[in-house]
Amino acid sequence: MEYNLSRRMGQMRPSAVRQILKVTEQPEMISFAGGLPAPECFPVAEIAECAQRVLAEAGAQALQYAVTEGFGPLREKFAAEMRGRGVVGCTAENLLVTSGSQQGLDLIGKILIDPGDAILTESPTYLAAIQAFQAYEARFVPVRTDELGLIPEALEESILRERPKLLYVIPNFQNPTGITLAAARRQAIYDLARRHGILIVEDDPYGKLRYRGVEIPPIASLDEAGIVLYLSTVSKTITPGLRVGWVAGHPTLLRSLGIAKQAADLHTSNIDQRIVDRYLTDFDSAAHIERIRQLYGARFAWMDNCLTAQMPGEFHWTHPEGGMFLWVSCPEGVDAGAMLPEAIERKVLFVPGKDFFPDGSGQRFMRLNFSNAPEAKIEIGIARLAEVARQALVMAEKA
Amino acid sequence: MEYNLSRRMGQMRPSAVRQILKVTEQPEMISFAGGLPAPECFPVAEIAECAQRVLAEAGAQALQYAVTEGFGPLREKFAAEMRGRGVVGCTAENLLVTSGSQQGLDLIGKILIDPGDAILTESPTYLAAIQAFQAYEARFVPVRTDELGLIPEALEESILRERPKLLYVIPNFQNPTGITLAAARRQAIYDLARRHGILIVEDDPYGKLRYRGVEIPPIASLDEAGIVLYLSTVSKTITPGLRVGWVAGHPTLLRSLGIAKQAADLHTSNIDQRIVDRYLTDFDSAAHIERIRQLYGARFAWMDNCLTAQMPGEFHWTHPEGGMFLWVSCPEGVDAGAMLPEAIERKVLFVPGKDFFPDGSGQRFMRLNFSNAPEAKIEIGIARLAEVARQALVMAEKA
Repeated sequence: MEYNLSRRMGQMRPSAVRQILKVTEQPEMISFAGGLPAPECFPVAEIAECAQRVLAEAGAQALQYAVTEGFGPLREKFAAEMRGRGVVGCTAENLLVTSGSQQGLDLIGKILIDPGDAILTESPTYLAAIQAFQAYEARFVPVRTDELGLIPEALEESILRERPKLLYVIPNFQNPTGITLAAARRQAIYDLARRHGILIVEDDPYGKLRYRGVEIPPIASLDEAGIVLYLSTVSKTITPGLRVGWVAGHPTLLRSLGIAKQAADLHTSNIDQRIVDRYLTDFDSAAHIERIRQLYGARFAWMDNCLTAQMPGEFHWTHPEGGMFLWVSCPEGVDAGAMLPEAIERKVLFVPGKDFFPDGSGQRFMRLNFSNAPEAKIEIGIARLAEVARQALVMAEKA
Repeated sequence: MEYNLSRRMGQMRPSAVRQILKVTEQPEMISFAGGLPAPECFPVAEIAECAQRVLAEAGAQALQYAVTEGFGPLREKFAAEMRGRGVVGCTAENLLVTSGSQQGLDLIGKILIDPGDAILTESPTYLAAIQAFQAYEARFVPVRTDELGLIPEALEESILRERPKLLYVIPNFQNPTGITLAAARRQAIYDLARRHGILIVEDDPYGKLRYRGVEIPPIASLDEAGIVLYLSTVSKTITPGLRVGWVAGHPTLLRSLGIAKQAADLHTSNIDQRIVDRYLTDFDSAAHIERIRQLYGARFAWMDNCLTAQMPGEFHWTHPEGGMFLWVSCPEGVDAGAMLPEAIERKVLFVPGKDFFPDGSGQRFMRLNFSNAPEAKIEIGIARLAEVARQALVMAEKA
């Protein structure tokens, strides 16, 4: 039978990352593809303890339906977290608990985007944000970036030309490039958005994972006009296996997001929310995050060394101050996507760059994750990748 | 600031039920409003035990990101459950785990509905399905029902007139009426849908909660053409606090639903899925469901007795063979919505009927939940409701 799908399904593609994740299970495979946290950092015993406490103390409540906005004490904690990030005056009224921050993107698309609406993004940008907004038939307008992030002059040109509905930006250790948006640019970008009446969707899953340099307040901390919707998550700081994130912003927008969430999943797992709440109450999450930071900093440094030692000189990569990813530029004429089958053959995985560009450009790039694999595997994996790179280089020179 | 929301948000309304849920917290309030399971039936100790086992045996895997389709062993179990319900040949390939069956409705809307597409529904129908499909700007076409459910002749008329994309139907102990679609009608409806090339979305959250009469196989059991998408959930049989449901259907549709789910929340809580899987492996869920059935059967009988004893003779109600709801018809001239403030005053809650009609008609009806409150509260609550009813009757006669 031929199914008559919705028009938007014609635009939606399966995520390359999630397709590649299926290959990671092969024996001997070393994966730099997924955005997976280091499993040895998961607080397994603490989560088990929290689950026991929640079920012993409020079992029937934890297993019942719950309000859409989220578990009250957890909303309070996330609001306090926002104030700690410089968003003065943030309260539970500014906050919706979501089923991971991916759901925040979906709900934002639902309440804001009509077919054909322009969305400005960094170029490249997070591929699952492209997916989420594609579901509402957004038109993507990539804005030029450099090593300090989005370029305000390029942004203004795009705003004037495209009359966009919103700007989507990942200011800290961007996915996929690892680049951080400079403080002065945050202000410039906020001022432009405010002047031209567009919303900013600030996606900040990695902000807490800074292992070098100085923390920069989020764009949301500059927001006096209520034009910033800020997303974050516990996926990178506690665990992604419990799907718990949040959106913070103006109560009017939050009300619409809440209505959209009712229709999307009624509420986020009640027990997962209460487990996270107990964890934040009963355990030292700051110390835990510090441990993650040190581990990821060491893994980045190690991968950087391995790349320097092994990769042909024609390949370059970014040097992020935090997060989970670095971004490799291959020389002209090398197609990273074409390298993937050979890489799979040699048991190493990466994500080709083109999926991070809404227009499918970016063949020359690849994203490498440095948080998931331990040092010994990073060394072997980069050696394998370097062989693939050398071979691709020979092919490109022949062509 | 004035926000420029998407066009679809103009159609979306907050759920009346979820608004009313906020009042249920008041002291002394007796609620027949929510669709809440009896909390004394939640297997709290068993869930705690399962959480411990999952985290002890596979903690790091349970706390990591997971595949979108759902936890493999759980998909297998839900597929086996489908075969047990008469859907021969159902396998994991026919199945997507969702974050409650509400998410199934949202994803179905996303992959199938373009603005203006007609959706046929029972009249009245589940209000959160209206919400989910409204988000995709569906046009609702209510089809006449009687005490045996949807009327096939009325359905055919609507199909010919409206050229709908799909039929949405809740065949067992329908929400809100409690009515069950007769077996012969299931066949007739399936044949009509197949002949006219429309899809059937069969929503079956309550099917396992039959306390009287004989089980009727789902429409999905008749499906040779791959035109039925069947939704169910563990919310009513284990717990709604873990958000775990499923959609079963043709692999082609399931593939599209999976792509839509990637964009919506990446995957359902990994730990929640594994807890449900352990529960189904390690505990006797059939015996547990039998306990729920007996309890709900007794509560329905008790509420029915109380209504008979207390309510004015002009009020009538349905006598469901399972599920969680009955449906009260008020006499002409009585507006159930107008009774609600007085009911809140007297500390009893119900859901006015009009929210279950996409066109906002149905002022004469109210939905009562009989699963949540224990007998003593049912008796007091119905006595209060009867006072409100008598008062409304006096007002109506004066008018």
